[in-house]
Amino acid sequence: MVKRYSLTGYEKNDDEDLWLWDDIPEKGFELGYKVEELMHYEKSKYQEISIAASTGFGKMLVLDGIPQYTTKDGFIYNEMLVHVPLTIHPNPRKVAIIGGGNCGAAREAIKYDSVEEVDTVEIDKRVVEVSNMWLSKSEIGKEDKRAKLIYQDGTEWIKEQKGAYDVLLLDRSDPYGPSIDLYKEIFYKNIYTGLKDDGLMVCQSGSPYFYLDILKNTVNLLRRIFPIVCVYLATIPSFPGGIWSFTLASKKWDPIVVDLSRLKCENTQYINRKIFISCFHLPNYLIRELDIE
Amino acid sequence: MVKRYSLTGYEKNDDEDLWLWDDIPEKGFELGYKVEELMHYEKSKYQEISIAASTGFGKMLVLDGIPQYTTKDGFIYNEMLVHVPLTIHPNPRKVAIIGGGNCGAAREAIKYDSVEEVDTVEIDKRVVEVSNMWLSKSEIGKEDKRAKLIYQDGTEWIKEQKGAYDVLLLDRSDPYGPSIDLYKEIFYKNIYTGLKDDGLMVCQSGSPYFYLDILKNTVNLLRRIFPIVCVYLATIPSFPGGIWSFTLASKKWDPIVVDLSRLKCENTQYINRKIFISCFHLPNYLIRELDIE
Repeated sequence: MVKRYSLTGYEKNDDEDLWLWDDIPEKGFELGYKVEELMHYEKSKYQEISIAASTGFGKMLVLDGIPQYTTKDGFIYNEMLVHVPLTIHPNPRKVAIIGGGNCGAAREAIKYDSVEEVDTVEIDKRVVEVSNMWLSKSEIGKEDKRAKLIYQDGTEWIKEQKGAYDVLLLDRSDPYGPSIDLYKEIFYKNIYTGLKDDGLMVCQSGSPYFYLDILKNTVNLLRRIFPIVCVYLATIPSFPGGIWSFTLASKKWDPIVVDLSRLKCENTQYINRKIFISCFHLPNYLIRELDIE
Repeated sequence: MVKRYSLTGYEKNDDEDLWLWDDIPEKGFELGYKVEELMHYEKSKYQEISIAASTGFGKMLVLDGIPQYTTKDGFIYNEMLVHVPLTIHPNPRKVAIIGGGNCGAAREAIKYDSVEEVDTVEIDKRVVEVSNMWLSKSEIGKEDKRAKLIYQDGTEWIKEQKGAYDVLLLDRSDPYGPSIDLYKEIFYKNIYTGLKDDGLMVCQSGSPYFYLDILKNTVNLLRRIFPIVCVYLATIPSFPGGIWSFTLASKKWDPIVVDLSRLKCENTQYINRKIFISCFHLPNYLIRELDIE
């Protein structure tokens, strides 16, 4: 008999081993991560938050049963979300990250000397507190007076920003629960308004293999608003299918003409100058779907 | 109660749905593929061979419970195994594929006009016959008089080849069961001897995330034998972690100086000229592990 845990995503098998399951029901695909120890679990006002010590991926931050960050491969997501836009913008001073409560994205952003302020806008204070408690300092970034935390709903916060930011990053979870409004056209329009005249944004836009519709929708909505829209890719082994998309939308700066000496890749684990160039090179099956060139 | 199938890898869940499970026990990681219909199953002299109609990946060729090829994303593996070496070699005429019984690699190789002969050396005739029966003609390639099948153990066959081939491709399964000898130094030495003076080889070398030791071992053994050894990557969503490595070993031709107009990418689904360049760009975590540059 399979014993089911009451916690979303977790399940004990016949051998009493605890596993976390991430499934894509419409594709009949499931990923299982063996959990050595469930270090933390709580229901916050917004979602279930847990920290699991996994066998293969180190400590995992899990929201509503879905792994968001692992200590073994989470650097890939954070580096690709942050370094790409902060290299394309020639002088990023004011940066905000909407979502990103584990603070790994802010840690990457403060590597850029031009950056004067990094605001992390997180709806759920408990995500920040739980990450601070269980993930190591090196994972969430040292204290830096340029990094500020704002506990507010990103969709509300962005309405108050007018021409204020050089770079806005959407470190959003999948389009369910608290993140659903972060996928709507009105939100992207507010992002446009919140950016300076030469500002740019990047969002994670899901698996191009399993959720191509989400990626296409993101690209199509952003193309209506921004003159420059590009998709780039990274492979994150703990995510379903590995391949993951990010969408960049820019008012002025184009990734095609970039000074790569600005890329702060001395201490990165994933990105380097060649990866920066390569990540924009899409396979044919995606070029055709996204109507590129 | 979980009902277990007697077939390796397959299992029925509480709802009587059939799933195929691919697991990496030492990493506590499992992938589940929902199976709509088990179209074929047999035990050959060498291994269990099955064809499963999956929900998310189309028809799958499965050997000893491990998916080898899917009709939805198998093109990625075949294109990357074949087009990269056949573009680097300026005039590939005689090509052999060791393994590759689903014949998808041979299909890609015959796209190159210079190719006069493509020998597929497969130990298990039933893999070829089952693939022919269940996978569509467009998947396994039209009949072409240049494509020949040789039913022999690749480790024995290679001993008889002396300076005969321009390109040798190792379409091997993981280093267990019938493939284990395809990972040994003596086999790589025989590959070297089987190639012409300017010949080159490519092998799949596993997941660089889950099986870094296999990749490192492959690279180290080949570096002792060949003057030019390079690793390149592709992301294959149905494979664990997505990211997958190929290792190229060459006597003369170097991927750094290649005429990309030779790449036959008009009808490919994955590779194009930019992907060709990008696939050799490794993330920092791999560059450090592989001692590159």
